[in-house]
Amino acid sequence: MSRIPVALIGAGRIGRLHAAHLASMIPQAILYGVADSSADAARAVASAHGVERWTTDDETLISDPAVRAIVVAAPTPTHVPLILAAAAAGKDVFCEKPIALDLPSTDRALKAVAKAGTRLQVGFQRRFDPAYRKAKEMIDSGALGRVEYVRDAMRDPSPPSAEYLAASGGIFRDMTIHNFDCVRWLVGDEAAEVYAAGACLVDPEIGRLGDVDTSVVTIRFRNGALASIENSRRATFGYDVRTEVHGSKGAIFVGYSRETAILHLSEEGVRSDHVHWFVERFDAAYAEELRSFVCTIAAGEPTKVTGADGRAALALAVAADASLAANRPVAVDGGAE
Amino acid sequence: MSRIPVALIGAGRIGRLHAAHLASMIPQAILYGVADSSADAARAVASAHGVERWTTDDETLISDPAVRAIVVAAPTPTHVPLILAAAAAGKDVFCEKPIALDLPSTDRALKAVAKAGTRLQVGFQRRFDPAYRKAKEMIDSGALGRVEYVRDAMRDPSPPSAEYLAASGGIFRDMTIHNFDCVRWLVGDEAAEVYAAGACLVDPEIGRLGDVDTSVVTIRFRNGALASIENSRRATFGYDVRTEVHGSKGAIFVGYSRETAILHLSEEGVRSDHVHWFVERFDAAYAEELRSFVCTIAAGEPTKVTGADGRAALALAVAADASLAANRPVAVDGGAE
Amino acid sequence: MSRIPVALIGAGRIGRLHAAHLASMIPQAILYGVADSSADAARAVASAHGVERWTTDDETLISDPAVRAIVVAAPTPTHVPLILAAAAAGKDVFCEKPIALDLPSTDRALKAVAKAGTRLQVGFQRRFDPAYRKAKEMIDSGALGRVEYVRDAMRDPSPPSAEYLAASGGIFRDMTIHNFDCVRWLVGDEAAEVYAAGACLVDPEIGRLGDVDTSVVTIRFRNGALASIENSRRATFGYDVRTEVHGSKGAIFVGYSRETAILHLSEEGVRSDHVHWFVERFDAAYAEELRSFVCTIAAGEPTKVTGADGRAALALAVAADASLAANRPVAVDGGAE
Amino acid sequence: MSRIPVALIGAGRIGRLHAAHLASMIPQAILYGVADSSADAARAVASAHGVERWTTDDETLISDPAVRAIVVAAPTPTHVPLILAAAAAGKDVFCEKPIALDLPSTDRALKAVAKAGTRLQVGFQRRFDPAYRKAKEMIDSGALGRVEYVRDAMRDPSPPSAEYLAASGGIFRDMTIHNFDCVRWLVGDEAAEVYAAGACLVDPEIGRLGDVDTSVVTIRFRNGALASIENSRRATFGYDVRTEVHGSKGAIFVGYSRETAILHLSEEGVRSDHVHWFVERFDAAYAEELRSFVCTIAAGEPTKVTGADGRAALALAVAADASLAANRPVAVDGGAE
Repeated sequence: MSRIPVALIGAGRIGRLHAAHLASMIPQAILYGVADSSADAARAVASAHGVERWTTDDETLISDPAVRAIVVAAPTPTHVPLILAAAAAGKDVFCEKPIALDLPSTDRALKAVAKAGTRLQVGFQRRFDPAYRKAKEMIDSGALGRVEYVRDAMRDPSPPSAEYLAASGGIFRDMTIHNFDCVRWLVGDEAAEVYAAGACLVDPEIGRLGDVDTSVVTIRFRNGALASIENSRRATFGYDVRTEVHGSKGAIFVGYSRETAILHLSEEGVRSDHVHWFVERFDAAYAEELRSFVCTIAAGEPTKVTGADGRAALALAVAADASLAANRPVAVDGGAE
Repeated sequence: MSRIPVALIGAGRIGRLHAAHLASMIPQAILYGVADSSADAARAVASAHGVERWTTDDETLISDPAVRAIVVAAPTPTHVPLILAAAAAGKDVFCEKPIALDLPSTDRALKAVAKAGTRLQVGFQRRFDPAYRKAKEMIDSGALGRVEYVRDAMRDPSPPSAEYLAASGGIFRDMTIHNFDCVRWLVGDEAAEVYAAGACLVDPEIGRLGDVDTSVVTIRFRNGALASIENSRRATFGYDVRTEVHGSKGAIFVGYSRETAILHLSEEGVRSDHVHWFVERFDAAYAEELRSFVCTIAAGEPTKVTGADGRAALALAVAADASLAANRPVAVDGGAE
Repeated sequence: MSRIPVALIGAGRIGRLHAAHLASMIPQAILYGVADSSADAARAVASAHGVERWTTDDETLISDPAVRAIVVAAPTPTHVPLILAAAAAGKDVFCEKPIALDLPSTDRALKAVAKAGTRLQVGFQRRFDPAYRKAKEMIDSGALGRVEYVRDAMRDPSPPSAEYLAASGGIFRDMTIHNFDCVRWLVGDEAAEVYAAGACLVDPEIGRLGDVDTSVVTIRFRNGALASIENSRRATFGYDVRTEVHGSKGAIFVGYSRETAILHLSEEGVRSDHVHWFVERFDAAYAEELRSFVCTIAAGEPTKVTGADGRAALALAVAADASLAANRPVAVDGGAE
Repeated sequence: MSRIPVALIGAGRIGRLHAAHLASMIPQAILYGVADSSADAARAVASAHGVERWTTDDETLISDPAVRAIVVAAPTPTHVPLILAAAAAGKDVFCEKPIALDLPSTDRALKAVAKAGTRLQVGFQRRFDPAYRKAKEMIDSGALGRVEYVRDAMRDPSPPSAEYLAASGGIFRDMTIHNFDCVRWLVGDEAAEVYAAGACLVDPEIGRLGDVDTSVVTIRFRNGALASIENSRRATFGYDVRTEVHGSKGAIFVGYSRETAILHLSEEGVRSDHVHWFVERFDAAYAEELRSFVCTIAAGEPTKVTGADGRAALALAVAADASLAANRPVAVDGGAE
C-alpha cells in the first residue's frame, strides 16, 4: 500500500499532536508538509518529524499536486476558507471542530465540499475512543434496549487564556460542541429542543466576555429521549469526561479515568490518581481519528464523522446560546441538513 | 435514661420498617402502640414486636397520655390531620415525606406545630445516611470550597402500582422531593428558579395519569450554584442513588452501592452486584433518622430536618410541576418561610 | 414462636457485641443472663440491655434450668471447662474461636459434646458474612469450576496489647485460624501440608514473645489445590480482609471494603475511605452467626460451623507453628476427625 | 540528534512488537535491519516497516559497522551466543528475558559484556510500566515506610503451546522470572531464601513435561521482608498482573486493568471488561524499555535493567526449582554477583 501524503495546516498545540500521530503512529500516511502563519512553528514541527517541506503559505501546500489530503488545525476563522480552497483543489479535509462559529458559514463549506465531491471529517475524537466506541456498539447491538436518558459531563482542568476565550465563540460552541456530537451519536437521533442554564462561577473574567463557565443543558430528542450535559471550565481534580446512557434494558457508564491502576492505602484512606489533561485521556482517540480519516480516503469511502455531523452539533450550540439568552427552551433548527 | 414511648400510625411497608427500628434498633425508644386503618395490619406489626397496644383508631394513641411522640407512616392525605391532632395533644411528630401535596395544607400544619410549640421532623432519610452525612461535613468544612454544581440522580428499580401512582402527586412531589431536599441541604442555599423536562418512556400508563416517568430538573440557586436532578421510575440494574458535588477546590462523588464487595471474573469480564432496593441502600439511614428524632425529643432540642425543610422541598416540586406544564423556567415561591 | 433463653459468659469486647446482638437483633432469642469474672462488667452489660440476671459465677447460669443455650466469650483457657460443664448440663454452646490452643483439649471438648448429644458452634463469623456466603454459593454452584488457588489476606489495624498477645497462642492460633477455616470452607477439602514463613517486622515486643507479626502460609490441599494466607498485625490503612478464589472457569475477588461510597476528588487525586475495624466490616456477620445458632437450636438442627471445623482449623495452626519452627513444610495431622 | 541504528534479531511475536516500536514509536532509533532463521519472517517484518536490510544470518548484522545496537528477540538458547558475538563486535545489546536457562551460561555472557565494556539490558518491561514506575517512586520516596510484604500475582490467559513449554525451562525460569525481578526491584534488597509450591491443575500435558502450571513462591529477603508470588498458566478472565506492597506507613495496590473504562449495568449486575493479553497491558512499557535502552546508549549511560538484574532473577528461579524438587525452603545462591 502506498502512503497517503497529508499536509498539516496549523502547528499549534493540537496541530503538533496531529503531526506526531501522522509521522509515527499512522503507517498509511506520510506527513508531507507543514504550514503555519508562524515560520518558526511550522519549521519546528516539520523538523521534529524529519519533514522537509514547511511554509507560511497554506495555499502552497493545498495546491501541491503531491498532497492528497489536508489536516486543518489552524484557528477556527480559517476553517471555512481552507475547506473552500481544499475543495476547489479536489483535496479531502480533516478539520478540527468546529467547522465555523455560525451556521451560514458552515453551510457554505458543506455545499462546496458536496459540489467538489471531496470528503470532510470533523475532529470529534471521542467517537474513536475505545470506551465510547464500545458503548456505541453496545447501544447499536440492542443490549441497552431503547435509550431513554443520556448524561454527559465534561470539565476542563482550568480555564484557557482570555485570548483563547475571546475568540472561542463561547462555551457551547467551543466545549459543549463535543458533548452535543456525543449525545446525538449515542442516542442515534436528532435533538428537538434545548434548554441551557449557565453561570459564571469560576472566573469573573469569563463573565465580562459575556460567556459562562459552568453550564447544564437539557436536550429533548425527537424520539422522546432526554439528555443532560454539564460543563465547567474547571475541574479541580483534572480532566473530567464521563457519560451515562440509561436504556430500557440496561445502562452504561463510561467512567472516570485513572492515569495508573494504583491504589495508595494509608491512614488518610485510599487514594488513586486521575487523568489530568484531554491529551492523556484521548491520545489514542486522536491517533485513531486520523488513521480512520486516512484509511477511508485510501479506500474511497465516506468519512466516519461528516460535515453534517459538525453542522448538527453547531446547530445545538446555536440553540443553546439562544436558550441561555432568553432563559427558555428553544427549538433546534434542523436547517439545511 | 427512660425510654420515650412512641406510637406508630400506619402499618404499611414503610411503617413496618419504622416499627422494626423502633423495637430493636433504638434503645432510647419504646414502641408503645400501633394504629392502622386495617386491624390485621396493626395487630400483625404489634405482635411481631411484642407490643400489646394496637388499634384502628389513631386518636386513641394520639390522646393516650403515655405517648410522647407519634411516627406518621400513613398515606399522605392523612398527614396534615394527624399533625394537627398531634400538635393539639402536645405530641412531637415524625412524619413521612411529603407533609402534604400542596403548600397551603403544608403551611396549615406548620403553623399548628409552631403554635403548639411541639416538634416536627420530616422523613428525608438521606440526611442520616453515613455517606451523605460525610459529604455534608466535608462541604461544611470548606474542603470543597464554594459549591458550584450538584448532580443528583435517583432511579427506582421499577414503577410502583397504578394505584400508588394515582395518589402520589406526580413524580416531583413523590420521588424528586428527596432530591430537592438533598440538593438544598448540600448547597446550603435556597433555589431561585427551576426548569423541569420530563417524558413518559417507561410505562404509557403513567402518561395516561398525566404524569412523567423520566425527568431532568435544572435548578438555579440564589447564590448562583446550579444543580441537575435526574429521575426515572425504572433502573434496569437496581436502585440508583448517586450524587456529585463539584466545588471550587474539590469534588465529591457519593457513588454507586454494591450489595457485596465481590468481583466475579470470568470470560464474560468482571461482574459485581448492585443494591436493588432503597431499603437495602438506606436501612441504616432509616434507623438513624428515627434515633435522631427520639434523641432530640429526649434532649428537648429541635429536630434535624424541620417542617420548613419539608415545605421548601415541596415548593420546589410545585415549581417543577409548573415548569413542566409551561415548558419554561419557573421561579420558586419562597412563600411563607 | 417462643424465644430461646441464652446466657452469655464473658462480658469483654466481643461479649458485649454478642450481648447487643442477642438483645436487639435476634428476636428468636432472649438474653437471659450475663456472667463475667468481673461483677462490674457483668452488671454493666446486663443493665445496658435491661437484663436482670448477672453473676460472677458461670455455673449458676449453666445450671439454671431456664437457660437453653450458652454463648462463651470468655478467655480461651475457660472454653473447654465451660463446654464440658455445658455438655454435662445438656446445654448447647456457641463458643468463640479457638476452642482451645491445643488439639488434645479440643478433642476432649468435642468428645464431651458428642457424648452429651448437644450442639456446638464455633465463632467463625466470616461464614455468615453476605459477601463470603455469596462467594461460597457461587463456588458450590460450579460457577468457578474446579477451585485451583485461594489467596486469603487479613491484616489488623494495629497489634493488640502485650497482655493479649502473651495469652493468644501466637499469630496462627489467634489470627490465621480465621483464614484456615475460611480456605478450608471455600476449597471444600482438607489440607494435606502447610509451609509457614514469618517475620517480626511490626513490633520487636512480639518477637520477644517468640511470636511473629507478619506471615505467609502456603497450603497444599488433598485435592491438589493451593492456597496462600497472608497476615499482619498491622495494616496502616485500616482493617484488611480480602480473598481471591481462582477456579478453572472463573474467579472471585471478595474485595476491599469502604465505610462510605464516597470518592473525594481534588488536586491530590481521588480518595476514598476504608473500613477501620473488624466490627465495622463484620457487624452483620456477628449478628447472623448468633441468629443462625439460635435458629438451628430452635429447629433441632446441627449448627452450621461445628466443633470439627474448629478442630480442623486448629490442626492447621498447629502445623503452621511446627513449620515455622522447623522451616520446612509439615503434614497436617488429620487426627481424630 | 542522530538516530541510533538498531538491528533486530528474531522476528517472532515479541520481535515483531519490538520492530513496530523501533520503527514508529522511538524517534531516537532507526530500525536498521532484521534477522531471523526464517527468511519469510525476516522479510515480512522488514517490509512492514519499510526497512531494506533483512537476513537469515545474524552475524551479517552484528558485524555491520553501521549497526550500533542489537535487540535480541530470538529463542532463549541463542541469547548467550548472540551476546558473546555482539560483545566481541563492541555492540550494545537489549536481550529478552531470560539471558539463559542456567547460571553458568549467564555468567559467561555477563563476563564477556563486562570485558568488552559494552552495555546489556534485560527485557523486564514491567519496570517501564507507568503504574509500576509510580509504585517504585513512592516506595523510594519513603511514602510507604519500610517495605514488609509484597504480593505479586501473574496469570496468563491460557497455556502456551507444548512446543513452547518444552523449551521454556519451566514456569519459574519462563514466567515467574518477571515476578522475581519485580519483587527484588520493589523491595530493593536481595532474596535470602525461597520456598516454592506447585501443582499441575490446568493441563496434564504440562505435568508430563515435568513442569507445574500453578505455583506459589514464598521469598524471605535479607532485610527480613517477605514476599509471595503466585502464578498460573491460565486466568479464565484474561491477563492478570497485580501487585501489592505493604509498608510500615502505607500500602500500594497496582490494580487490575480494564481495557475500557466502561461499566455495563443491567439485571445481571454491573459488568466491566478486563485486559486480555500482556501486549494490551504492557504495550507502553515495551515501547518505553526500548526507548530507555536507546537513550541510555545515546547518552553513554548504564542501562536501567542490567545483566546482573537478569542473573539475580534467574538465581531465584533456580532456587525455586530446587525448592519445588526437594519440597523445602532453599537458600538463594548469591553466586558471582
